[in-house]
Amino acid sequence: MTYCLAIRLDEGIVFLSDTRTSAGVDNISTYRKLHVLRPAPDRAFVIQSAGNLATTQEVLDRINRDLAAGDGRETLATVDRLFEAALYLGRLSTEVVGSHRDALAGSGADGTATFILGGQIAGELPEIFLVYPEGNYIRASKTRPFLQIGETKFGKFWLELAVHPRVDLDVATKIAIGSMLSTARANLSVGPPFDLAVYRNDSLVFDEHRIEADSEYLAEIEDRFVRQLLDGLDELPAIPWSAG
Amino acid sequence: MTYCLAIRLDEGIVFLSDTRTSAGVDNISTYRKLHVLRPAPDRAFVIQSAGNLATTQEVLDRINRDLAAGDGRETLATVDRLFEAALYLGRLSTEVVGSHRDALAGSGADGTATFILGGQIAGELPEIFLVYPEGNYIRASKTRPFLQIGETKFGKFWLELAVHPRVDLDVATKIAIGSMLSTARANLSVGPPFDLAVYRNDSLVFDEHRIEADSEYLAEIEDRFVRQLLDGLDELPAIPWSAG
Repeated sequence: MTYCLAIRLDEGIVFLSDTRTSAGVDNISTYRKLHVLRPAPDRAFVIQSAGNLATTQEVLDRINRDLAAGDGRETLATVDRLFEAALYLGRLSTEVVGSHRDALAGSGADGTATFILGGQIAGELPEIFLVYPEGNYIRASKTRPFLQIGETKFGKFWLELAVHPRVDLDVATKIAIGSMLSTARANLSVGPPFDLAVYRNDSLVFDEHRIEADSEYLAEIEDRFVRQLLDGLDELPAIPWSAG
Repeated sequence: MTYCLAIRLDEGIVFLSDTRTSAGVDNISTYRKLHVLRPAPDRAFVIQSAGNLATTQEVLDRINRDLAAGDGRETLATVDRLFEAALYLGRLSTEVVGSHRDALAGSGADGTATFILGGQIAGELPEIFLVYPEGNYIRASKTRPFLQIGETKFGKFWLELAVHPRVDLDVATKIAIGSMLSTARANLSVGPPFDLAVYRNDSLVFDEHRIEADSEYLAEIEDRFVRQLLDGLDELPAIPWSAG
């Protein structure tokens, strides 16, 4: 499995993805699931992926082939709006799965993939989209400024409780790391290194950072989260009905 | 859906269950999923249930019918050990589902149920068991002193991070409430009132308490959890690679 999340704030966007892939517990690997693309000077995108690794790799290869073709076809460089980029990504995804459908059905494999696409085209507002395997999409909203794909349940409380659009990019990054750590701790199929990309509105560039498994900051932040949780328990009011 | 959890500590056991049942979002009800049984003076049990409501109700009715029969059949009053109580519960569960299998298959419904059974038989150690729909069981361990059924993912971090067997019953109760609130907040299919049962080793009685939706303590504890999470974010060390 996988855990990827994106948070859209007034100030910009935070993207965070794990890198663990598994085809059974005896076949664990590390693959990048967060990809930064800058297909033209007026635009910058992040694509995050969950689901079938072969599908996500072929989708990315097709994106790059389209960009290199230069024959007037639709590409991430030609779309005028971000939702068109989401639909383009959805179309490639359904085409890739469709091209392998018979073989996949024969082996009982699910070849589908789900994506988050976010970023900005100059002159447009920055946005994030969740692209379903069916090729359609939803976007984040002001009241629910985040999107998640993969193992979304374990770390949802961080986003529910702590995220709102006015949070700054550094606080949102900490929330994203908290959500990721809660997920990775509960679920072996999600794990470090974690890939982070932070986007400041209208910059058209991403601050990218890979958080390694042995990162001192990661260890410190995880230690603090645990201590805060335990200290918080001590500070809670006594249980009024307790017989103890 | 449902969320039930049980934590086995050196001092005793904490059980907590929600009460929301749903057969579609237009058919929401409140049903007790935590049942205290005292079938004989030398034993006390809690049974928590998740899954098909008709199955769990018929299983409980059969338990009581067996107890009333007095004809030498196996009952919760006759079993010598807790694992035998778990197997007895598992047998009833598979029998009930089996008796409705054809009709359930016809409508495509899943009639299965999963249970937690815990408590003590005098002379035995207190224990908690998770009883699968297949009728077999697992118990909690010293290193993983909790069991969950239903919507287990949203609140798992509380248990993973904060529970160990040396925690006292009041702290474990707060952890259980934290886990329940995180789940109910993320998932509409889990909701109050919450039923709590606390067992102190060798007492053979449960402290029972229903935490109502409008409980002041529940509101206060939820408010504190959120504030602690937000305050904690402020206290985290600065992100070393931040460009902000």
